[in-house]
Amino acid sequence: MNRNVIGIDIGGTTVKLGIFEAGGTLVTKWEIPTRKAAGGKDILPDIAASVRQKTAELKGALSDYAGAGLGMPGPVLPDGHVDFCVNLGWGAMNPQEILSGLLDGLPVKSGNDANVAALGEAWQGGGRGYKNLVMVTLGTGVGGGVILDGRIWPGTRGVGGEIGHMHILDGETERCNCGGYGCLEQAASATGFVRIAKRTLASGTQPSALRNIPEPTAKDVLDLAKKGDALALESVETSCRYLGWALASVTMVLDPEAYLIGGGVSRAGTFLTEKIRRYHDELSPMSTKKPKILLATLGNDAGIYGAAKLALG
Amino acid sequence: MNRNVIGIDIGGTTVKLGIFEAGGTLVTKWEIPTRKAAGGKDILPDIAASVRQKTAELKGALSDYAGAGLGMPGPVLPDGHVDFCVNLGWGAMNPQEILSGLLDGLPVKSGNDANVAALGEAWQGGGRGYKNLVMVTLGTGVGGGVILDGRIWPGTRGVGGEIGHMHILDGETERCNCGGYGCLEQAASATGFVRIAKRTLASGTQPSALRNIPEPTAKDVLDLAKKGDALALESVETSCRYLGWALASVTMVLDPEAYLIGGGVSRAGTFLTEKIRRYHDELSPMSTKKPKILLATLGNDAGIYGAAKLALG
Repeated sequence: MNRNVIGIDIGGTTVKLGIFEAGGTLVTKWEIPTRKAAGGKDILPDIAASVRQKTAELKGALSDYAGAGLGMPGPVLPDGHVDFCVNLGWGAMNPQEILSGLLDGLPVKSGNDANVAALGEAWQGGGRGYKNLVMVTLGTGVGGGVILDGRIWPGTRGVGGEIGHMHILDGETERCNCGGYGCLEQAASATGFVRIAKRTLASGTQPSALRNIPEPTAKDVLDLAKKGDALALESVETSCRYLGWALASVTMVLDPEAYLIGGGVSRAGTFLTEKIRRYHDELSPMSTKKPKILLATLGNDAGIYGAAKLALG
Repeated sequence: MNRNVIGIDIGGTTVKLGIFEAGGTLVTKWEIPTRKAAGGKDILPDIAASVRQKTAELKGALSDYAGAGLGMPGPVLPDGHVDFCVNLGWGAMNPQEILSGLLDGLPVKSGNDANVAALGEAWQGGGRGYKNLVMVTLGTGVGGGVILDGRIWPGTRGVGGEIGHMHILDGETERCNCGGYGCLEQAASATGFVRIAKRTLASGTQPSALRNIPEPTAKDVLDLAKKGDALALESVETSCRYLGWALASVTMVLDPEAYLIGGGVSRAGTFLTEKIRRYHDELSPMSTKKPKILLATLGNDAGIYGAAKLALG
């Protein structure tokens, strides 16, 4: 019997939850706040209480569900253990075991949130139909997730798919959040697009509408580039070249069928993905059948979709 | 019943063959020439005849064997199809099906030679005990193979593990054999080590014993670096930094347990791997539990070991 499953995506501000049919149809979705006080001790009990309330509203029992999936911000080991989740206040623990206990033994599977979002996009989003793909999320940071043979590849120690921390800007003197110098994230996150734009502006005196915006956002930079502002365009090309370069390196290692570009920056659409594709193809000439560079489509729901898919196995 | 298997590694000059017990013990190995004339049409019949002769000498029948594995120079699709093997003169064909037909239907499995060598090292060589590893072969070119969960990851179109063609030397103006500019191979193959050494020599006037060698080899460069020749050491550091950088990028994508360094250049031993490790660790600070950087141990036999493991499944 194809029973429904529950998808849960724990973020730093809200927990997103969704109930899904086995075929991928979203039955209902909702959110609760993430209570991070006191080491985040309320987060899992809050989730359990909310799940119980929702399933009761739907006039069903917990035992009617096949299981739940859980996406969390941080490295997750194959058995669900996390050493820490900085954004949630958690130290070493096994959230999937705890949540299962709070839900009368309902099976719970878990993974890193970026990996889980990639799985969601592969299942019901922009990556439908592809079994081997890499998702890159261009948000505050640059996240990533690797899907091989339809499953998350979490890596041996949970840092698989950390595309944003590939070393790309050689000689960079500013430090990345990870402690390194020259990570892709420094050029291709929302902050990275702005950083590169400021550098491009500083490198010359050419007029640009960007000079009139005191604190430009990535959207400002991309919008002006679309309108043909030469300096904005130059800076977007620079960021996209670093992105294309990183993905070209991934292609020579994993040879996936497709890349999915998501996150806030990806709202720039094919204007962005076409540039990334051009640099990717130029920097991976050996790959004669190029992977596709596609847009993610599930937005903030990718996490609950992927968590539901985790629960389905 | 644990029946023996046959491992076959087709190279441009010789075909290496070996008979293995299921536990990994090499029973016997031998070689035959690779006859590339006339589109390489004799290669598979020669192999079949040689296998028949050897099994007869061992007083056994072909049907006593569980199967054969085949490593080939070129991209191999999951069903064994190859579009071409330039070094063998082959066009589009399915060598594993043909060989199986020539061997009375004995099951034959095949893969790209670099991937198969990586599997051999993971099974019985320097990578024993690791299920997730990446092998890098520093020879005339730079080859690579990705092993995940104990199996070859060939990629969607057979270019998985082509570490040598990751773009690393940005701004390079000389062309790589693959058609690209700035591949790792251009700095880290045997030829690449010499190339970087010549550039290092040309960049200054500092004295160096390297200046007295008209056509230095990679071994010359590495030997002089070991003896403390400052320019040779500088050039080896440069090549090893590019290698460490490429592997650091692989770590952020795949997070393997170990890297295995093989090929002629790897005879420089831990002098080489320690330098690669230092740059790898520096350029992947987010990975707190570092993968090991180890030496391959099977040398030219890695291919027949890996082919045997393929046959065992």
